[in-house]
Amino acid sequence: MKLTTRVKKILANYSGENPGVQAKLAQMLMHGRLGGTGKMIILPVDQGIEHGPARSFAINPDGYDPLYHHQLAIDAGLNAYAAPLGSLEVSSPHFPAQVPTILKINHANSLSRLKEDADQAMFGSVEDALRLGCTAIGFTIYPGSDQAFEQMEEIAELIREAKAVGLPTVLWSYPRGGDVTKDGETAMDVVAYGAHLACQLGAHVIKVKLPTDVLEQKEAKKEFTDQKIAIGTQAERVAEVVRSCMNGRRIVVFSGGAAKGTDAVLNDARAIRDGNGNGSIIGRNCFRRPRAEAMELLDTLVRIFQGKE
Amino acid sequence: MKLTTRVKKILANYSGENPGVQAKLAQMLMHGRLGGTGKMIILPVDQGIEHGPARSFAINPDGYDPLYHHQLAIDAGLNAYAAPLGSLEVSSPHFPAQVPTILKINHANSLSRLKEDADQAMFGSVEDALRLGCTAIGFTIYPGSDQAFEQMEEIAELIREAKAVGLPTVLWSYPRGGDVTKDGETAMDVVAYGAHLACQLGAHVIKVKLPTDVLEQKEAKKEFTDQKIAIGTQAERVAEVVRSCMNGRRIVVFSGGAAKGTDAVLNDARAIRDGNGNGSIIGRNCFRRPRAEAMELLDTLVRIFQGKE
Amino acid sequence: MKLTTRVKKILANYSGENPGVQAKLAQMLMHGRLGGTGKMIILPVDQGIEHGPARSFAINPDGYDPLYHHQLAIDAGLNAYAAPLGSLEVSSPHFPAQVPTILKINHANSLSRLKEDADQAMFGSVEDALRLGCTAIGFTIYPGSDQAFEQMEEIAELIREAKAVGLPTVLWSYPRGGDVTKDGETAMDVVAYGAHLACQLGAHVIKVKLPTDVLEQKEAKKEFTDQKIAIGTQAERVAEVVRSCMNGRRIVVFSGGAAKGTDAVLNDARAIRDGNGNGSIIGRNCFRRPRAEAMELLDTLVRIFQGKE
Amino acid sequence: MKLTTRVKKILANYSGENPGVQAKLAQMLMHGRLGGTGKMIILPVDQGIEHGPARSFAINPDGYDPLYHHQLAIDAGLNAYAAPLGSLEVSSPHFPAQVPTILKINHANSLSRLKEDADQAMFGSVEDALRLGCTAIGFTIYPGSDQAFEQMEEIAELIREAKAVGLPTVLWSYPRGGDVTKDGETAMDVVAYGAHLACQLGAHVIKVKLPTDVLEQKEAKKEFTDQKIAIGTQAERVAEVVRSCMNGRRIVVFSGGAAKGTDAVLNDARAIRDGNGNGSIIGRNCFRRPRAEAMELLDTLVRIFQGKE
Amino acid sequence: MKLTTRVKKILANYSGENPGVQAKLAQMLMHGRLGGTGKMIILPVDQGIEHGPARSFAINPDGYDPLYHHQLAIDAGLNAYAAPLGSLEVSSPHFPAQVPTILKINHANSLSRLKEDADQAMFGSVEDALRLGCTAIGFTIYPGSDQAFEQMEEIAELIREAKAVGLPTVLWSYPRGGDVTKDGETAMDVVAYGAHLACQLGAHVIKVKLPTDVLEQKEAKKEFTDQKIAIGTQAERVAEVVRSCMNGRRIVVFSGGAAKGTDAVLNDARAIRDGNGNGSIIGRNCFRRPRAEAMELLDTLVRIFQGKE
Repeated sequence: MKLTTRVKKILANYSGENPGVQAKLAQMLMHGRLGGTGKMIILPVDQGIEHGPARSFAINPDGYDPLYHHQLAIDAGLNAYAAPLGSLEVSSPHFPAQVPTILKINHANSLSRLKEDADQAMFGSVEDALRLGCTAIGFTIYPGSDQAFEQMEEIAELIREAKAVGLPTVLWSYPRGGDVTKDGETAMDVVAYGAHLACQLGAHVIKVKLPTDVLEQKEAKKEFTDQKIAIGTQAERVAEVVRSCMNGRRIVVFSGGAAKGTDAVLNDARAIRDGNGNGSIIGRNCFRRPRAEAMELLDTLVRIFQGKE
Repeated sequence: MKLTTRVKKILANYSGENPGVQAKLAQMLMHGRLGGTGKMIILPVDQGIEHGPARSFAINPDGYDPLYHHQLAIDAGLNAYAAPLGSLEVSSPHFPAQVPTILKINHANSLSRLKEDADQAMFGSVEDALRLGCTAIGFTIYPGSDQAFEQMEEIAELIREAKAVGLPTVLWSYPRGGDVTKDGETAMDVVAYGAHLACQLGAHVIKVKLPTDVLEQKEAKKEFTDQKIAIGTQAERVAEVVRSCMNGRRIVVFSGGAAKGTDAVLNDARAIRDGNGNGSIIGRNCFRRPRAEAMELLDTLVRIFQGKE
Repeated sequence: MKLTTRVKKILANYSGENPGVQAKLAQMLMHGRLGGTGKMIILPVDQGIEHGPARSFAINPDGYDPLYHHQLAIDAGLNAYAAPLGSLEVSSPHFPAQVPTILKINHANSLSRLKEDADQAMFGSVEDALRLGCTAIGFTIYPGSDQAFEQMEEIAELIREAKAVGLPTVLWSYPRGGDVTKDGETAMDVVAYGAHLACQLGAHVIKVKLPTDVLEQKEAKKEFTDQKIAIGTQAERVAEVVRSCMNGRRIVVFSGGAAKGTDAVLNDARAIRDGNGNGSIIGRNCFRRPRAEAMELLDTLVRIFQGKE
Repeated sequence: MKLTTRVKKILANYSGENPGVQAKLAQMLMHGRLGGTGKMIILPVDQGIEHGPARSFAINPDGYDPLYHHQLAIDAGLNAYAAPLGSLEVSSPHFPAQVPTILKINHANSLSRLKEDADQAMFGSVEDALRLGCTAIGFTIYPGSDQAFEQMEEIAELIREAKAVGLPTVLWSYPRGGDVTKDGETAMDVVAYGAHLACQLGAHVIKVKLPTDVLEQKEAKKEFTDQKIAIGTQAERVAEVVRSCMNGRRIVVFSGGAAKGTDAVLNDARAIRDGNGNGSIIGRNCFRRPRAEAMELLDTLVRIFQGKE
Repeated sequence: MKLTTRVKKILANYSGENPGVQAKLAQMLMHGRLGGTGKMIILPVDQGIEHGPARSFAINPDGYDPLYHHQLAIDAGLNAYAAPLGSLEVSSPHFPAQVPTILKINHANSLSRLKEDADQAMFGSVEDALRLGCTAIGFTIYPGSDQAFEQMEEIAELIREAKAVGLPTVLWSYPRGGDVTKDGETAMDVVAYGAHLACQLGAHVIKVKLPTDVLEQKEAKKEFTDQKIAIGTQAERVAEVVRSCMNGRRIVVFSGGAAKGTDAVLNDARAIRDGNGNGSIIGRNCFRRPRAEAMELLDTLVRIFQGKE
């Protein structure tokens, strides 16, 4: 498929990267039903690690099988499938070159009392990503947590290592822990701040949660008010996150957060589109529904990002 | 011996692994009296390290001698014998190619006040496993403990190293420490979670304890109840663990835990079989009985997994 | 694109390779107009190095520009474009992910009196291939030459290095030098022998010249005669090469050799197809024609391999 | 441009450094409108990391774009532009060799409760600086903080690494944390002390805040009084800092601190000039104004350091 | 200085390179009196190594001093000064950042009976270039010589190493040795071939001798004749070399060869300009004249490349 003007324009913002990294970004941007639009839908499935298998998959037991999710990403025509080491070890041999894969490298788990506001364990490596034929690596940082500095140094090193071998990095930036309040985790200022930090670490694709209209930090609140930054609608808040990602020069995708109703998910997608976000990472809202419903939901999402709904 | 259809089907789930790893898995699956059935009995003897020699072996003093256990695994027609570095250094030269051996690499010990809910020391290495002609390496993690993240990174690195030289990994996953309660260590949700984490780390064979019907984590409890997951019988609980191991795509074996009565041991084995678990790791219940009794017990276990009892 | 049955069958012969290598092979087999047929056309352009720029490109001066060839491979819908380091350094940034690229790593040149029957210089490396986003590496050996053993050790090492990072290897195997006569270079027995050596070195795709019905080695001649191996037609000779490539379990493509008339090129392709070869590597016969003619020729070749002409 | 006598005199103080480090220092000293005067104005933009994007850039939204700042440094004829990894990854390809760049390597962020008196995360590396074509690396230490010793060891190591590849180091030395009071952070004795520590760590350019006439440490206060050190005017205090920087043998530049009125900024610059400081690092006072105003302010600053205002 | 359109266009051909390499190329292209024109004059002085000091410098004894040449390059406003390790060790500290320097890394010498048609010794390294503040490395290969393959592998490795740290490579490609005749060394086909090989090795700037209208290789001669390639004038021959350098996508500069009369040198320069070559490397014709004459010659050369003479 020939690169579209839209994708060329996005890649021009990565002109300092080597041809390998650029080609891998192009692969994700050109793949699937949204290929060429500059929009992406990524299916991430690592909740088995984060919350345990039953809590993640019992509601739709096909999801216990790693092949189920990989197949879903292919059949729904998504841009990429992100999964942990073990899942990709099992499923990759069954679907060579069928959909770009992202090796998610580090993980928290809720068995640990250190839990999610703390550190994460590294399950995979850059060499695993190459061996498994992945198109990118993925990593999570928790800005605000007491482990954030250490996590940032870990990912900075991994990004260097990955880009040297032509692999881009997708960085999940989820502020939490430390002084960040529960509401603050999705506050407008905090989410935009987390997105900015991810960009500055050298990530190529940034993944954040959809922000609410809460403003967590006093000084930020003053600035948002003084400068009259519009954050009343979800689309406006997406736009502020996009601005915070190098003024739109880095790809940013949004997660829907906890599983919720179809209408909410679709409205989120419209807001992401209208705020010029690059797309959605949608996991739980897919695999916790029966396959037919998930396929229908993804079809509607694709159509929304295509500007058809 | 020709691979049976059952073993071929199991190996198909490891199609991403190199032929060396697959061959070693096949060796264990095809060896002994259960060879070809897809079931395994492994004899592990590292309790000398964990609890001290007298506490482990005085009741049956032949057990002080590493050759005793190695010989027992051979004579009982088991699939593999797992032991620490020192034991295998002593016994391996006496039984070349007589039974697959697994080098257990890390160990806790009860002299340390850090005990078992904490870290373990690395006694062996991948190169030791090669030098000693082992068929796999073994490792223990304690999900839930404050050292779990570090342990996971250690084993992730070791698995990479081992598979590069054609060795599969058997991972003991024993949740404990941190916020995990004593009952929680064998709770249904916690055991399944630990098994899933082991799979995601890239382990080839997962070893967990038989779960009880306790549900430890509030959110998991809700999910088990809402989805009406049957966990009333031991076999049902085994089935849930199997599902949590990549929907049965990874080999999972169960330990009997503390030494107990023969009937209890046999009933456990029947439950493992009926829940489609892949077999038993049975240590203390063997070496703390006189050899004749142990041989008889193992014979009955074999017959149970053969579907004859 | 979903893998076709034909491509799945081919990949099954590479089941010992890691998912990365398999995915890259799938990418080449599924790309372009022949995607999914199990046939491939690869455009290689390294003759500037081998014969000098004027001798290669003056006849069609657009060919002085590396972008010209890369664009041609894309526009003609070929499976892959193979080129030296310098060419890919120039062209790769312009065509991210538009067609699989093969970094040709070593090269002879006709300025050297050591010439083509001798060693080659390594221009590129596996890390260059990763940095440039390539799908495979390419290498040439000259079985029969006095440097052949050294070349074989070089490529054996490179294949190991490349496959560890998920890259397959395309191996040009051109017997020459030493006691190999000029006619012997394309003799039936010698070409088949060279192809077999390439397979045995661990190459994933083998590239040889179309053999003639000459039989070079006395002992081979006896065997061909005694066993009544049919080599009368080009298709029969292709079939014998395919057999020599692990009985068809390794992909083998054929070069047309020196630039020649269109009919000869097309008949070669039909013979490759009828003898169950996997396709053509066609360089000089493309870039030494005007673009319109080259496009027409490639279109016909594609149709031949599609079984339409 | 030929080195001026002034610049030669400055470089003579670095005669122990290798020619690479000296050349990079000369580049910064000879570049822009102040080139050759021995004075420098550096534009640093890392407040997005330190305070978050909205708080930094909303007042002048062009600043969300890394290209804006890089362009401003060029257009204003400044000596260098200092920025974090992500910013330089985005902007560097657009402005090759247009203005010396300094890769700021470590950063605090105000999402963390560990905040600025504690550690910083390393976003970049010396190899990043080389890859991005930078002229120097930048680093921040917090003398007085509980992490200061560790930071000092980090930067000492980085300075060694950087100078081996011909890169000088700009060291931000900001006493804070531990027993340092809020007023003490800019106290005369403390600022001079921090500057001296930076010199002793081997930094080539030292960056401190303009000191007040507060004297924080009792013993220092006694000495300043006993020796009748003049610190009544800003210029006198600058002179004391310069003395503390190896008696003026190391380049020292001053930051204006929080955004403030134009007159204050200009008076600060006159004091720096009159006290023989080497110049200003001015960030927030630039990018929080509209571009036209920033350009005007920078023009006046340049003229002040040229001795024209 | 702002990049000119011409320089931007040249840099666009290096878009696969990292920002460091691009910045260093820009530095050379933007420096000196020809800065921004896309033309370059480089002063190389390594003949002391090649021919011995008296033979090189006795005629103009100032040339015994490395500072003399470095100063000349600065005073004449050239784009770069290329010299061996020892020379730059001596002169670099005296002229920091006054003119881009190129560390010439390998050298032949005429004390050796292996002489110039054979191998060269490596005097310097990439780390030397960084330590000395150089803008590029330089290297010589002798295509056609029996050592050519080894030289090519050496420089391929050095180019990789240098570009990783942001340094471009200037490659002297001088066919000689082996079957190359004396006349063949500057034959049209041979020079173009050597230039092409240098490009394919990944060099960023190619340096060759001005070709004569001799055609050395039989097959090439046929092609030049058949395709009616105009090589009657020096400008036409330069144009053919430019074409052979990736169709003008790589910078190519020409040496004047042996010292000769002023008119010959100037006519050479006009031909380089008219054939769209990027400039001259002129050594012996400079340093074997008195400084005043050399300065006058260089001034005229600059004016020629500026299109003024």
